[in-house]
Amino acid sequence: MADEDNGEELIRLIEENDLTGIRLWLASHAPYEIADELERMDSSRAIVPFRLLDKDRELEVFEELDPVHQQEILVGLRDAAFHDLLEEMDPDDRARLIGEAPAKIATRALAGLSPAERKMTAALLGYPEGSVGRYMTPETVILHRDLSVGRALEVVRAKSAEAETVYTLPVVADGRRFDGTVQLADLVRADDDTPLKDVVDVLVPRVQAAEPAEDAARLMQEANLVALPVVDSEERFVGLLTFDDALELIEAADSEDIARQSGASPVAGHYVAASVVRLARARATWLLLLIVAATLTVNVMQAYEATLEQVTALALFVPMLTGTGGNVGSQSATAIVRALAVGEVRVRDLPRVAGKEARVGLLLGLMLAAVAMVIGSALVGTLIAGVVAASVIAICTWAAVIGSCMPLLARRVGVDPAVVSAPLVATLVDATGLLIYFNIARLVLHI
Amino acid sequence: MADEDNGEELIRLIEENDLTGIRLWLASHAPYEIADELERMDSSRAIVPFRLLDKDRELEVFEELDPVHQQEILVGLRDAAFHDLLEEMDPDDRARLIGEAPAKIATRALAGLSPAERKMTAALLGYPEGSVGRYMTPETVILHRDLSVGRALEVVRAKSAEAETVYTLPVVADGRRFDGTVQLADLVRADDDTPLKDVVDVLVPRVQAAEPAEDAARLMQEANLVALPVVDSEERFVGLLTFDDALELIEAADSEDIARQSGASPVAGHYVAASVVRLARARATWLLLLIVAATLTVNVMQAYEATLEQVTALALFVPMLTGTGGNVGSQSATAIVRALAVGEVRVRDLPRVAGKEARVGLLLGLMLAAVAMVIGSALVGTLIAGVVAASVIAICTWAAVIGSCMPLLARRVGVDPAVVSAPLVATLVDATGLLIYFNIARLVLHI
Repeated sequence: MADEDNGEELIRLIEENDLTGIRLWLASHAPYEIADELERMDSSRAIVPFRLLDKDRELEVFEELDPVHQQEILVGLRDAAFHDLLEEMDPDDRARLIGEAPAKIATRALAGLSPAERKMTAALLGYPEGSVGRYMTPETVILHRDLSVGRALEVVRAKSAEAETVYTLPVVADGRRFDGTVQLADLVRADDDTPLKDVVDVLVPRVQAAEPAEDAARLMQEANLVALPVVDSEERFVGLLTFDDALELIEAADSEDIARQSGASPVAGHYVAASVVRLARARATWLLLLIVAATLTVNVMQAYEATLEQVTALALFVPMLTGTGGNVGSQSATAIVRALAVGEVRVRDLPRVAGKEARVGLLLGLMLAAVAMVIGSALVGTLIAGVVAASVIAICTWAAVIGSCMPLLARRVGVDPAVVSAPLVATLVDATGLLIYFNIARLVLHI
Repeated sequence: MADEDNGEELIRLIEENDLTGIRLWLASHAPYEIADELERMDSSRAIVPFRLLDKDRELEVFEELDPVHQQEILVGLRDAAFHDLLEEMDPDDRARLIGEAPAKIATRALAGLSPAERKMTAALLGYPEGSVGRYMTPETVILHRDLSVGRALEVVRAKSAEAETVYTLPVVADGRRFDGTVQLADLVRADDDTPLKDVVDVLVPRVQAAEPAEDAARLMQEANLVALPVVDSEERFVGLLTFDDALELIEAADSEDIARQSGASPVAGHYVAASVVRLARARATWLLLLIVAATLTVNVMQAYEATLEQVTALALFVPMLTGTGGNVGSQSATAIVRALAVGEVRVRDLPRVAGKEARVGLLLGLMLAAVAMVIGSALVGTLIAGVVAASVIAICTWAAVIGSCMPLLARRVGVDPAVVSAPLVATLVDATGLLIYFNIARLVLHI
């Protein structure tokens, strides 16, 4: 595991401009550790150690950086270094970098590439953002299905230098029509004379290049694949999605879902390097919408102002009730959003899910009502406590149903279920929960 | 991608007891698709198609199931089938299954194993739960560093049938002392006469078997490794953590963090198959703690009851203020918990994080105060609106600081930061936020 105190030392060396010290530090750390430290600094600092890396490691460290930091580093490089770096990158990483960069950097980058690399990059950029096409590697060793195992191994040996991966080898028929894959392990195990046809896995899952990359990554996890073949709309092989990109995609998708669940947009790049304004901007939109939606709670409170004036004790329990309803609703929403993300729940499960969550909410409501009854009786007497307890039961059941159905309805109308954030559910449950509370109070207290 | 309507069909076939139909369905689906459908049924149903699988596929499907469903299926099997299945499983999957199973199943399982497999399983079960030792595979092809590349390839060919993976090959010195790894791709590329020493990567990261499995999986993601070598406390090689386990670990860890963020415990197994009681139990503990903690809000409201009676308009904004404070606090907490999980923030960043979040909270507070001012002025007049707006600024700043510091403090005292859930932060901010609000009100309104 990485040493937690590395970073302080590197920053000190940079501040003291101790070039020998920085070189020694770089030599004793792995590329991913160096990248991790650079991502924690602002770019004016990070460029100093980056320029001191030797050629080979420069590329390795650069490929470990996320696109935001890659852009910042690129801006700080001279033309020759800039173009060398881009020329050497893996085509999928390069396409992603260029696809996300401002137009100025993108143009400068594309202009400097060799014709072959430019063509490959342009092809990947032709796929929609977030699709498998942007993440797959086209640099593979393709085998024709009519080869023998021995001949296939020779092809792998001869061409492996250009390929990003040789563990999963695509096998094609004439016209690049995808047939299946063969594992390098199986080639090594089989006799040289075996026809390749006999060891090809023709049932291996495959995806179309335009499909969402996240779905493809989750498929790899489910099917335990080290690389997933990608085909075009005519079933021609176009590339492989490799496990490292799948790991990154899953981690990024989860980060995004987690941020969305709290009503924030995901912030690209390291938290530590993100500016205050960027962090605030990622959270502002939902907060604005939610405070406007919270006007509903003010309206409900106003509508029942007379009730509140008659029995001021009712006001005491408002934060507790809205809080509890919000908590139950958030739990249901979070559980369903996650179950949708990992494929455990589908839209057609809606009635089943709603029924189940209603019972979960009722059960939780009964339990919490008992507690509310005790607290309420101690503080304001049993009558008001009874109103509060009855409200807790109704609000919890209602919150669980709302919280679970909203993500499913969002998915049905084609909206990312993760936008049904915990705060959104809580705000809706606040207003409706108050309605429930005041109506129960009026009914019981005859006011 | 899996066909969304498969499941309905399989369930119908089971209900009609159409064995031929089930066999046909099974033959036309991949093991991971079959496992996915079985996980959505209760075990009495799932056992029917499972028994109809032929030997080879039975194992493949079984290994795709999560431990909860594996146990349920095992209980439904006759002794011979039960023991065959366990004997054939990968040792790491088997150790995890036995480690999590009730004592009765575990004993029956261990008793039926062959001595060799039992020894391997016992060794894995010797590592703590959740550690790398439980997830690594001990079945690898180990190469001695004094071999040549050609000789090494022969060893791989001869022994590959017993190994779970041959893409990353551990290289050891005498006494199994771990030296580094060599990629099968590099062996295939190199000349047969090259000494193995020349192609070994001795800088490859390694972990100790007792370390947490999640950290190891995140390290693989950072360092782009298809397999991570695992050593014991004396630096002897003991196994490899493979990418498929890493993918599963990351997805499971994220599911756990997401559940915790909403104040729920993670529920093992498929959502659809989980019972109402199990779902309720996973969510009950925190809800109970939180409703008790919410008594604080009742106390604060009671302490300021006189103020509320004098200016009833103040009560109208209570849900809006507690809601907004909760939202801002949850966003900060969620962002920091995630940054800690993926290694972007460390405990020593506390002062930096607190300062940054204070400014983010202030910025958001100013923006939301403007909205609150407009809403408040329209509904109750500028004086009260001013009190509300000032409170929004103070509460947002306070919420962001509390939300961001609590996960870091939890980590410092050795508690999982994910227990600092959004509802916990919201509840704390509710009570303290009300204190802020009523004190500003008293100050401004001179009451």
